[in-house]
Amino acid sequence: MKFEIFVTLKKDVLDPQGKAVEGAIKNLGLSTISNIRQGKYFTLEVAETDEHKAKQQAEEACKKLLANLTIEEYSIKKLS
Amino acid sequence: MKFEIFVTLKKDVLDPQGKAVEGAIKNLGLSTISNIRQGKYFTLEVAETDEHKAKQQAEEACKKLLANLTIEEYSIKKLS
Repeated sequence: MKFEIFVTLKKDVLDPQGKAVEGAIKNLGLSTISNIRQGKYFTLEVAETDEHKAKQQAEEACKKLLANLTIEEYSIKKLS
Repeated sequence: MKFEIFVTLKKDVLDPQGKAVEGAIKNLGLSTISNIRQGKYFTLEVAETDEHKAKQQAEEACKKLLANLTIEEYSIKKLS
């Protein structure tokens, strides 16, 4: 079972990386674009046929490794 | 208009970062998880009411800055 995982900074956490990208984009002349925030994106496979269990495994990976829950949040979507 | 952008390595490009994450996950005992690939995730706003034009702006940002089209591909989804 394949999942995609998004890890983003919580809303109240400053995003210097996003700000840097935004600066670069403005320098390129794309003045309509704003409010850029950058996160991480993962795709992974779980060798488990039960969807609920598979999602639990993916969540465990998020909690233990992929996301820093102090400042980040994650969401998981099933792909196939 | 808000968009989300996914930038991922092309299928045939090796993903050492994903491999490293996979190693770490195996070390944590999550043996069912495999095939991890890591990408970038952006959310941004485009100050443009016409959806087609707004998407074009987002695409330009991808082509010029966010994605390295030699090894990466991107996809854009409208959020709101």
